[in-house]
Amino acid sequence: MRPKESPQAVVFDVFGTLVDWYGSMSAHARRVAERAGVELDPDAFATAWRRQYHPSLQTVISQGRPWCDLDRLQAESLPSVLAEFGVTLGAEDRAELVAGWHRLDAWPGTPEALHRLRAHVPIASLSNGHVRLLLDLSRYAGLPFDTLLSAELAGTYKPDPAVYLMAARLLGLEPGQVMLVAAHPADLAAAKRTGLATGFVPRPAEWGPDTAPPSPPPEADLVGTDLDDLVIQITT
Amino acid sequence: MRPKESPQAVVFDVFGTLVDWYGSMSAHARRVAERAGVELDPDAFATAWRRQYHPSLQTVISQGRPWCDLDRLQAESLPSVLAEFGVTLGAEDRAELVAGWHRLDAWPGTPEALHRLRAHVPIASLSNGHVRLLLDLSRYAGLPFDTLLSAELAGTYKPDPAVYLMAARLLGLEPGQVMLVAAHPADLAAAKRTGLATGFVPRPAEWGPDTAPPSPPPEADLVGTDLDDLVIQITT
Repeated sequence: MRPKESPQAVVFDVFGTLVDWYGSMSAHARRVAERAGVELDPDAFATAWRRQYHPSLQTVISQGRPWCDLDRLQAESLPSVLAEFGVTLGAEDRAELVAGWHRLDAWPGTPEALHRLRAHVPIASLSNGHVRLLLDLSRYAGLPFDTLLSAELAGTYKPDPAVYLMAARLLGLEPGQVMLVAAHPADLAAAKRTGLATGFVPRPAEWGPDTAPPSPPPEADLVGTDLDDLVIQITT
Repeated sequence: MRPKESPQAVVFDVFGTLVDWYGSMSAHARRVAERAGVELDPDAFATAWRRQYHPSLQTVISQGRPWCDLDRLQAESLPSVLAEFGVTLGAEDRAELVAGWHRLDAWPGTPEALHRLRAHVPIASLSNGHVRLLLDLSRYAGLPFDTLLSAELAGTYKPDPAVYLMAARLLGLEPGQVMLVAAHPADLAAAKRTGLATGFVPRPAEWGPDTAPPSPPPEADLVGTDLDDLVIQITT
C-alpha cells in the first residue's frame, strides 16, 4: 500500500541497507589476521560477530543497561567471537577490528542514489551507530546525508519506538511524514508500529552468498527492486 | 595563541557567522510589509527583532523555562517588535517572518570555504537554531556540514557550557580537540571556558552598515582576516 502523500523526509538504516558490512568487515578481518599471523575464516568471522549485534543491543533496550555506544558493545562481544574460531588477538588488533565498523564500503551506486533523492527531500541516517561512527562512516562511504540521526540521541537502540519518534521530533514532522528505508523487516515493522512510513530495499548479498535474503515485509509501504527504483518511487 | 595541535573537528556558529541574517531578514520583512500594505523600515525591524534574541534565550538558559525552539521564541517576541514600529500583522504574515529564519543567505564564498575545510576535517554546525531550522538553512544556503549539532540536543542554549560539551561528546572528542568558529566574542569566550579551541571570523556587515563590528576577542586561538583565511590557518 502506498502512503497517502510523499514523505517530507527520508531516514535510512545504514548497516546492511547502505553499506556492506559483510564484505567490508571480512576484508578488515583478513588483513588483521594476516598481519597477526593467525588463521581465521574472515567471512565466517564477520557473520558470527554480526550475529552478536542484536543480543548486545537488547542488553540496553530491554535489560535496563545504561546506554553505551556500538564501539563498546562490539569490543565486548569480540573476544568470545574470536574464541569460537580458536583465535586470540592483542588489544591493538582488536581495536582495529572495532574501528573497522567506522569504515564500511557503500553498496555500489548508493551515494549517487542518495544524491538524487536529496535533491527532492531532506535525508538523514537513522542508525544504531553512534554519531561519531556515522560521521566517520558517511565520510568514508560518501553518504551525503543532510544530518546524522542516531539512536544515541534517544539513549536507546532500534527497534525501541523512542528512536523513531526522536527522528520525527528532530525533523519537525509527524511520524507519518517521515519514511524509514531499510533492508530489514524488523526495523520496518517497528517503524510502522511507531507511525512512520516505510520503504524496503533488498540487499540480497547482505549476509554473504549462502544466506537467503528476507522477503519484503507486509509493513513496507513501498518496495523497491533496488535503491534506484525506490528513489524513483519516492520522488514520482 | 595558536592551539597546540590542529582541531579534529570544527563546529560553526551559524547566524551571523555563516549566514547574513540582517540582509536576508530585511528582505523578508520588506516583502511581507509590501504585501500587507504596511509601512515598516525593514533594516531597523531586522535589527530590533534580532536584539530580542539573547533576552529570549536567557529565559531558557538561566530562568528555568523548559526548552522551546527558536521558532517559538521568535514568534513570541515578534508582536512587541512590530508594535515598536506601530505595525500589526496577521497570523500568516507573522508566521512567514518566523519561517524567514530558515531561509537566510550565506555570506559570499562561505559554502566554498566550508567545502575546502571539510576535505581536511569533519565540520558541523553548533547553533542555537533547532535541528529542523538548521536542516532548512543548510539546504537553502548550501552549507555542506557533515552533521547538524544544535543546542536543541543539549536542551539549553549557548552560551550554556552544556551545549559545547554536548558537541565534543557527540563528536567523540575531548573539548580541546574541537574548534568553534564564530563571529561573536561571547560565544568564543564561553567555548574557551568550556575547553574548546576557538577561531574568530570577522563579519563586519553583520548588523548592517551603521554598527561597528566587534574586535577579535582575547579568547580566540586563531583570528582570520576572513573565512578563507581562517580555513587556511586551520588546515596548514
